[in-house]
Amino acid sequence: MTEFFKNISKIQFEGSESSNPLAFKHYDPERVILGKSMKEHLRFAACYWHNFRWAGADIFGDGTFDHEWLKVSDPKEAYLVKANAAFEFFEKLNVPYYCFHDTDVAHEGNSLKEYVNNFAQMVDVLERKQEETGVKLLWGTANAFSNPRYMAGASTNPNPEVFAYAATQVFNAMGATKRLGGENYVLWGGREGYETLLNTDLRQEREQLGRFLRMVVEHKHKIGFNGSILIEPKPQEPTKHQYDYDTATVYGFLKQFGLENEVKVNIEANHATLAGHSFHHEVATATSLGIFGSIDANRGDAQLGWDTDQFPNSVEENTLVVYEILKAGGFTTGGFNFDARVRRPSTDLADFFHGHIGGMDTMALSLIRAAEMIENDVLSKNIAQRYAGWNEDLGKKILAGDMNLEQVANFALDNNLSPKPVSGRQEALENIVNGFIYK
Amino acid sequence: MTEFFKNISKIQFEGSESSNPLAFKHYDPERVILGKSMKEHLRFAACYWHNFRWAGADIFGDGTFDHEWLKVSDPKEAYLVKANAAFEFFEKLNVPYYCFHDTDVAHEGNSLKEYVNNFAQMVDVLERKQEETGVKLLWGTANAFSNPRYMAGASTNPNPEVFAYAATQVFNAMGATKRLGGENYVLWGGREGYETLLNTDLRQEREQLGRFLRMVVEHKHKIGFNGSILIEPKPQEPTKHQYDYDTATVYGFLKQFGLENEVKVNIEANHATLAGHSFHHEVATATSLGIFGSIDANRGDAQLGWDTDQFPNSVEENTLVVYEILKAGGFTTGGFNFDARVRRPSTDLADFFHGHIGGMDTMALSLIRAAEMIENDVLSKNIAQRYAGWNEDLGKKILAGDMNLEQVANFALDNNLSPKPVSGRQEALENIVNGFIYK
Amino acid sequence: MTEFFKNISKIQFEGSESSNPLAFKHYDPERVILGKSMKEHLRFAACYWHNFRWAGADIFGDGTFDHEWLKVSDPKEAYLVKANAAFEFFEKLNVPYYCFHDTDVAHEGNSLKEYVNNFAQMVDVLERKQEETGVKLLWGTANAFSNPRYMAGASTNPNPEVFAYAATQVFNAMGATKRLGGENYVLWGGREGYETLLNTDLRQEREQLGRFLRMVVEHKHKIGFNGSILIEPKPQEPTKHQYDYDTATVYGFLKQFGLENEVKVNIEANHATLAGHSFHHEVATATSLGIFGSIDANRGDAQLGWDTDQFPNSVEENTLVVYEILKAGGFTTGGFNFDARVRRPSTDLADFFHGHIGGMDTMALSLIRAAEMIENDVLSKNIAQRYAGWNEDLGKKILAGDMNLEQVANFALDNNLSPKPVSGRQEALENIVNGFIYK
Amino acid sequence: MTEFFKNISKIQFEGSESSNPLAFKHYDPERVILGKSMKEHLRFAACYWHNFRWAGADIFGDGTFDHEWLKVSDPKEAYLVKANAAFEFFEKLNVPYYCFHDTDVAHEGNSLKEYVNNFAQMVDVLERKQEETGVKLLWGTANAFSNPRYMAGASTNPNPEVFAYAATQVFNAMGATKRLGGENYVLWGGREGYETLLNTDLRQEREQLGRFLRMVVEHKHKIGFNGSILIEPKPQEPTKHQYDYDTATVYGFLKQFGLENEVKVNIEANHATLAGHSFHHEVATATSLGIFGSIDANRGDAQLGWDTDQFPNSVEENTLVVYEILKAGGFTTGGFNFDARVRRPSTDLADFFHGHIGGMDTMALSLIRAAEMIENDVLSKNIAQRYAGWNEDLGKKILAGDMNLEQVANFALDNNLSPKPVSGRQEALENIVNGFIYK
Repeated sequence: MTEFFKNISKIQFEGSESSNPLAFKHYDPERVILGKSMKEHLRFAACYWHNFRWAGADIFGDGTFDHEWLKVSDPKEAYLVKANAAFEFFEKLNVPYYCFHDTDVAHEGNSLKEYVNNFAQMVDVLERKQEETGVKLLWGTANAFSNPRYMAGASTNPNPEVFAYAATQVFNAMGATKRLGGENYVLWGGREGYETLLNTDLRQEREQLGRFLRMVVEHKHKIGFNGSILIEPKPQEPTKHQYDYDTATVYGFLKQFGLENEVKVNIEANHATLAGHSFHHEVATATSLGIFGSIDANRGDAQLGWDTDQFPNSVEENTLVVYEILKAGGFTTGGFNFDARVRRPSTDLADFFHGHIGGMDTMALSLIRAAEMIENDVLSKNIAQRYAGWNEDLGKKILAGDMNLEQVANFALDNNLSPKPVSGRQEALENIVNGFIYK
Repeated sequence: MTEFFKNISKIQFEGSESSNPLAFKHYDPERVILGKSMKEHLRFAACYWHNFRWAGADIFGDGTFDHEWLKVSDPKEAYLVKANAAFEFFEKLNVPYYCFHDTDVAHEGNSLKEYVNNFAQMVDVLERKQEETGVKLLWGTANAFSNPRYMAGASTNPNPEVFAYAATQVFNAMGATKRLGGENYVLWGGREGYETLLNTDLRQEREQLGRFLRMVVEHKHKIGFNGSILIEPKPQEPTKHQYDYDTATVYGFLKQFGLENEVKVNIEANHATLAGHSFHHEVATATSLGIFGSIDANRGDAQLGWDTDQFPNSVEENTLVVYEILKAGGFTTGGFNFDARVRRPSTDLADFFHGHIGGMDTMALSLIRAAEMIENDVLSKNIAQRYAGWNEDLGKKILAGDMNLEQVANFALDNNLSPKPVSGRQEALENIVNGFIYK
Repeated sequence: MTEFFKNISKIQFEGSESSNPLAFKHYDPERVILGKSMKEHLRFAACYWHNFRWAGADIFGDGTFDHEWLKVSDPKEAYLVKANAAFEFFEKLNVPYYCFHDTDVAHEGNSLKEYVNNFAQMVDVLERKQEETGVKLLWGTANAFSNPRYMAGASTNPNPEVFAYAATQVFNAMGATKRLGGENYVLWGGREGYETLLNTDLRQEREQLGRFLRMVVEHKHKIGFNGSILIEPKPQEPTKHQYDYDTATVYGFLKQFGLENEVKVNIEANHATLAGHSFHHEVATATSLGIFGSIDANRGDAQLGWDTDQFPNSVEENTLVVYEILKAGGFTTGGFNFDARVRRPSTDLADFFHGHIGGMDTMALSLIRAAEMIENDVLSKNIAQRYAGWNEDLGKKILAGDMNLEQVANFALDNNLSPKPVSGRQEALENIVNGFIYK
Repeated sequence: MTEFFKNISKIQFEGSESSNPLAFKHYDPERVILGKSMKEHLRFAACYWHNFRWAGADIFGDGTFDHEWLKVSDPKEAYLVKANAAFEFFEKLNVPYYCFHDTDVAHEGNSLKEYVNNFAQMVDVLERKQEETGVKLLWGTANAFSNPRYMAGASTNPNPEVFAYAATQVFNAMGATKRLGGENYVLWGGREGYETLLNTDLRQEREQLGRFLRMVVEHKHKIGFNGSILIEPKPQEPTKHQYDYDTATVYGFLKQFGLENEVKVNIEANHATLAGHSFHHEVATATSLGIFGSIDANRGDAQLGWDTDQFPNSVEENTLVVYEILKAGGFTTGGFNFDARVRRPSTDLADFFHGHIGGMDTMALSLIRAAEMIENDVLSKNIAQRYAGWNEDLGKKILAGDMNLEQVANFALDNNLSPKPVSGRQEALENIVNGFIYK
């Protein structure tokens, strides 16, 4: 079989002193941290789409990549070649997991039937590849946003036939995910939103989206899929406004349709920042609401207003993210999927490895730093002390509902309350965090 | 009694040909549109804070205003003088309503007791002023964000005594609002958020906020206040992140605490844009979720990242906003409150009038245009036609829950569905809207 | 010859009462305003690229358009068909001008020689088309950003051969522009910037860009091209940072290379807002610096961080833009080119017309409103009065350089100056402007 | 004399293992790096305004600070007390420099004469304090933005008397800076911009600003001030648009008035990001244009659209900044001034130290990391290799102006150039940088 990534062998841990660019400096899969191996903590996945579907085009320019798997003209053959390249890559990269959209792995064809057949055949191929390599599926998903039929939405389309088409894809992709042992099923509603309010019925589209999600959850139970159903929030792009704007918005939607115990979120760093939040904020919001599921690890560019999907490289940012995840008990079915791509001018095959190795080392070092923060949890202690009053008499009564507004007001007046401001100590805490990050 | 706005008489409608800068060009209070007077439709209010509390300072500069009511040294006297100036202004401006915070109208004093007494005395004054002038109260609110005690939150403060202090203010402000015939009670959580996640317990603070809001709703029923309870969303500023980020976020919060039928939103244009949404979006979202309450009418600056609170002057923007409100049945207890202020260099007393007259004419013309859009509702017809498929067999079955995912997928496959994209006609619709706005 | 836009005849002015969506409501080409026809004032152009090259794809989805000219498989034939479609469109749209990139109108081929030959052949075709239809060329340009060779810059590429390649394209595109009677030649440096500072030599790239621009200016004189050379500023996208960030940045660059009297700017509305400025600001800055050239008329979306290239539809915004242009004497060689495209879901051929008609009517009504502002120039009078002190003794001496810092300080002290703030009257002026815009 | 910062002694270096929050972990003033002490490299300054003038107010809330120096009622006495507190702080903080505005250190009084006298008296005090403590002046400046007289600009005011007033302040502040041995004089034009174009004459205001700056430069030479004149760019806030928008804009302005060799920039991190640039970008732009002067070290919040002036705490960001400065030869007269303030809820005196210590350690560690990058300059080597072609025949001829556009085009055609894209290696370079930052 053709080797695509010639002269590159399986990436190994060599430690921070290594000058080998094709080695891990911090990610040591079997190293045990807080009782689990790094591999088990981080649950890394590489994605199919950015690496094997994208050809280096952007909105102002053609594809810059010259990779072998992009040059196969026969569509069916092309997907087989891609699968070979992809699994060679996953294996050499030493990631335990991968992720895919249905249309990443199989040719859509010219009809639903062709789609179903092509996809089924490729699922056989993927299954065999998984067995051969030991690479597992973190999650599957259906692409219901690229084809022109979805230009005005998938489940939120004004035409119910488009809803039905999307449902068919999701039905097949859920089946494939289950069969391939996937641990999650993800829904990203890239076109579930609007381009203009002038032609949009918000209430109607929300009902459609709610019905769609309910169907998915019911189907999960029906087929006995044990993984998690995840929604991936994004505020906009491609659509002017997307309904799954951010974690808080998704929570409201789940509550409306009674799905808050059935569906979690797959949080992407770059989507968080596009929504006007820090990545840390989105993760902390999700854990505090009990709907944290998985991560699409990447980063945006603070000066750019679109999804740049760069590889994460900030240990400063990700230490706090991993700390938040560890505090919430760590991943269950989720993991860190690199929804990231090399820059358009990074045209060498080795660049794929540089990007992922950088990302994996960033998250690995973040884990090491975060674990130290957990072991000596100054932040939690400080927080416990800061809110201590809520475990005392007044605080307890208020939260328990034992006092109404008038009673609280009377209490305040009778006691002539005059609470004194207490320093929030932000700078001191920031220094403490930096003390963990920088040795 | 001192006259503050000398040489300015009650503002009158003079029509669009008038060259009098101190006359309405479009706002003709008694003109009937769609069966109601403009006054009843628009329910304009002027606010106390920007006009009578603010002295023209910004974060880099001292107050530029030299107005009489800012020069009274005795605090109690100062608030009496302000009340005189304010009601002279409201009356001359010809607005039916005003709005206030407790600490706008009365001196806080040095203790809760002083606060309660001072406020009570000033409520007497306001009551008398209302009677004398016929100006009514659109809504009252409590300022639980300016005093240093609230620097780390009011109801979400780590110290329950601060919660109690805020509760006391709200208790008194709700009482005052009821007594003064206010039609709504508003909560803006300017400090209900965080400065840094490092010292914040999101889950705890959310519980506190939920408990607080529940108390407010219970108290409303207890005292028989018939107005609406409104939350005013804002994403940030002064706080780094505010929990009532936008309408969708507030909806999720209300659902969590079972308050979605008890509380509505007071949407501010500038808060919408700071949250990354159009003003139109926030209003349409609120009406589609059934939580639309009232409007803080102003505008931001598209290039600036803070709350500029400028007067609305875009008929283009506001025609669609008023159209959305009309489609949802118009205001019930809400109205257009001008949470807007003149620019810091607008130091003449007449500038207060220019700002409000411009805002009122903008909203009035928007109403006239929106009413025409309602009468000949091309947009609604277009939308009905666009979603018509959902009233046919497949659409109905899907929404009714009569088909599960597999059945929909089978239907699609059996019928070999291949839905064709249909133009969204955005440009044509935009032209139609402009045809209403520009004659 | 095939008719592409069937059932659409040449767009005519029908007045604001017309309900014909395929008629102008405000653009009446021969109507005389301030001594010139609307056609001469506005100098409208339609562009080749958005209409005849783009197939409706975005970064997350495939092309949605099914137009005839996109389906021709033979590349040379395809460009002939496009030319037929384009000129049918320009003529029916009733625009006097069009604009193109070299690679919009001819197949690049597989070598420089093929490029040169193909382009030359198509220039013959364009020349014939221009003669047949009377449509003229507002400006030509070369696309030195889409081909992978330009992924790291054209003139700023680390490889001088890429510079030479781009120079060849510009040489040919300038020649074609001259031959076709083009009135301007435009340079947009979509890749003249950096993706990361880590691999970039800013000083070196600036020298390259300066040399390139100087070559272009020298060549213009050498070949006797009488049109203007225009730079089109844009802050980013596709590149992370573009050197021609905004008008002020371009001005500094021109000054450094002594080109401020040789090169002007082509300002695009959407680029202005991406750079953090209002469109009005960019135009006013350019006229105040004496480098105003032409306009790429479109609009962005205030909530989106990328170039949406929507059709202009705000008379409010554009009235001030046209007012600024009129005050500066109007266009000389420039004009309003619609660098705008229909939304991806606007898949009907008629949508192309709706977009342009809306844009033309918007600019036409803006011209009508702006002309009234010029005739009764309240703003200019107000400004003259506001700065009147600079025509008096102290002001004149200061500006003339007759007083040094110490002398000014002594003057101030001796006269115990205590200047009083004067209202900026922003709200009153905004109302005056709205009085012109809304009748 | 009163001690203000009780229980805090002079901050000492204790190394990264120290758990003392009031010690430096990385800043070891006398440690030699690349041949100079850290103290000489970093040239730290603390500022007067955020620490001793600000009382913890923000636009929505009153001052939260209870510090002794804020409570002195007599204005003259208050400034003496502030000076005592300030120099105690500077000395204990162990910073070699401080910075001030004229009105930070002395009472403005009610007339120019009072201003001049008060300021002169306080300069005597500062001189004595400097002698006593050894703390030196990095730069002085005049506050020509807070007083209402400047609400419409200082040198760009429509009223020349305001220009004269500002000139008087600058005259006195330059004199004071010279006398106190200041190494730079800074101009920040907080109000040199516009609130609305409707009342603004851009060309006139630019002339005024140019004349003002020329006066300052002439005065510098006249009095023999050997320090640098620095402009501090900022895009907006408080003003809607500021003329010194960013470094590139300032460069254009300097070129227009022939001052590019006389004036440099003082770059503030938070101003860079508000202008849509990275901090690194602004520094690299300034060094590449030869106008780099000094740094206002702080950070903004990526989600907030205003100047938060937080203490720098990102070693990731600042390593590249310090690397850029080192590559350009390091500071001459400039330094790192902490234009940063504790958060409003950081109400303890110790918080001032936490903020500065964190900032100093961040910059110190950034220096250590950057020095390693300089010693083993992979980035520079990579860049040299990337642009190597420009030192070969074609590149040299192009840059030397030995080929015109036609000759370059002919060369390309004759040689049938077909340059192949070369990977930009961004990910690999990012990994290399992280390898320096994280051990």
